[in-house]
Amino acid sequence: MQWINKGNILITGLGLMGGSYAMALSRLGCHVAAIDTRREAIDFALEKGIIKEGSTEVEPALVSSADTVIFGLYPRTLPEWIKRWQHLFRPGAMITDVTGIKSSVVYEAQACLRKDVEFIAAHPMAGKEVSGVENSDDGIFRNANYIVTPTKANTRKAVEWCKDLGRILGCRKISVLSPEEHDEMIAFVSQLTHCIAVSLMTASENRHLADYTGNSFRDLTRIARINEDMWSELFIMNKKPLLDKMDRFLGEFREFRDALEAEDSEKMKEKMRLSTERRAWFDK
Amino acid sequence: MQWINKGNILITGLGLMGGSYAMALSRLGCHVAAIDTRREAIDFALEKGIIKEGSTEVEPALVSSADTVIFGLYPRTLPEWIKRWQHLFRPGAMITDVTGIKSSVVYEAQACLRKDVEFIAAHPMAGKEVSGVENSDDGIFRNANYIVTPTKANTRKAVEWCKDLGRILGCRKISVLSPEEHDEMIAFVSQLTHCIAVSLMTASENRHLADYTGNSFRDLTRIARINEDMWSELFIMNKKPLLDKMDRFLGEFREFRDALEAEDSEKMKEKMRLSTERRAWFDK
Repeated sequence: MQWINKGNILITGLGLMGGSYAMALSRLGCHVAAIDTRREAIDFALEKGIIKEGSTEVEPALVSSADTVIFGLYPRTLPEWIKRWQHLFRPGAMITDVTGIKSSVVYEAQACLRKDVEFIAAHPMAGKEVSGVENSDDGIFRNANYIVTPTKANTRKAVEWCKDLGRILGCRKISVLSPEEHDEMIAFVSQLTHCIAVSLMTASENRHLADYTGNSFRDLTRIARINEDMWSELFIMNKKPLLDKMDRFLGEFREFRDALEAEDSEKMKEKMRLSTERRAWFDK
Repeated sequence: MQWINKGNILITGLGLMGGSYAMALSRLGCHVAAIDTRREAIDFALEKGIIKEGSTEVEPALVSSADTVIFGLYPRTLPEWIKRWQHLFRPGAMITDVTGIKSSVVYEAQACLRKDVEFIAAHPMAGKEVSGVENSDDGIFRNANYIVTPTKANTRKAVEWCKDLGRILGCRKISVLSPEEHDEMIAFVSQLTHCIAVSLMTASENRHLADYTGNSFRDLTRIARINEDMWSELFIMNKKPLLDKMDRFLGEFREFRDALEAEDSEKMKEKMRLSTERRAWFDK
């Protein structure tokens, strides 16, 4: 692996994901530095040995000494950061990210980027219902899916480099999708599920639900504990695909509802047989 | 506990739940027999030591020697079984069940029941996405919720007896609700979640979803592997409360959808803050 002991890594945005990358890479022996506006985040990570150097300011020496820069910022902040600070990048630096949406981030960032550095975007399908470097955990990558989303601006070498990063983090399945394919996919498997979990939790004000639920309700609503700033940004920036998936789900759900109202047992069973068959693909 | 070594137990309907009861009670040293129409179910349970006696027919001696009868049958079958075979019950026998809906089963069963036996209904909030005694597992009760649903026809002694059964199975929280309260609750926390999971799975025919999902999608759709005969029966028999919960969820979901369409970030955040607060009650 070209990754191990290959120069300096800088994490910009040391939250849950940035912190988990830092933890994994430090454990592998890489030299990891971080920039985050939160003093407590930097202090915590230094104290725990998650990073070797850190700053709450964009320290020119930290940026220009980095061979690899990993963005753990909110989606809107990423292109802004690049526009403002890219003059500090070392020539030949490789840049990647963890952002949960791609089209509206990647093209903008690549369009304004210096030609002597390369930004190859990726999305590790891992996370937690809590935020902050204090909750970092490099175990979240274990057996996770990892999606690299190259554009025409990317070299084959960068794609391979980025896939290697996913592998050394411990991810199980490394895929390559276009930014648009990624956003369609993520609207369905991630964003829609979060919208459902939130709506399920807001649909009942019963304080005693926890005394009566089985695992199904607990599992369905685990992700209803949600970072509202980040997710509202992700939803709006992926509005078109997400609205499309929401409407498709609404249509299916309403069909099921109407079958129940009509006591159309055969129609309900047909849908359940289909869902059973499709869900089985996951358990292979 | 009055339960241990207290006479003979008969399980009628030796599926996943009946089998898990049998396994737990046999482990505790009880004498457990079972009746099930499936020859393989009885043979499997005998061979594995889950039961001591079994029959594929309603064997008069098995029924009349039982001090406790536990029904693991489908909801519609339970009252039918009682009407047809209750002449065989031993005077003073205690009867309970595992059925997932209550009003439409309990009142009918109690109304036709002999006066010298007592039926006290219960619902263990535990299960699996697979069926059959072959998948029995008495670990499913560990820390599960357990709901006893007495009516005016029940004695206080029977309620305590039934709560003790939940305790010795290993359940964590034992609650008492009326059949109607139970059905309202279950429509929301169990039936609605199954309808959502099914609709989510039927809303996409992408065969490669498993390569891109995070845990949220896997968790939300785990219960989309579903026994269509049992659940369509449960849904139709609890139609009114379930339609009400489905409509409430639909309303919330549509509000969230419309907030996204209007890019009303504040409205979305408000709902996410509420869901986060409510979901936190579960993690106490």
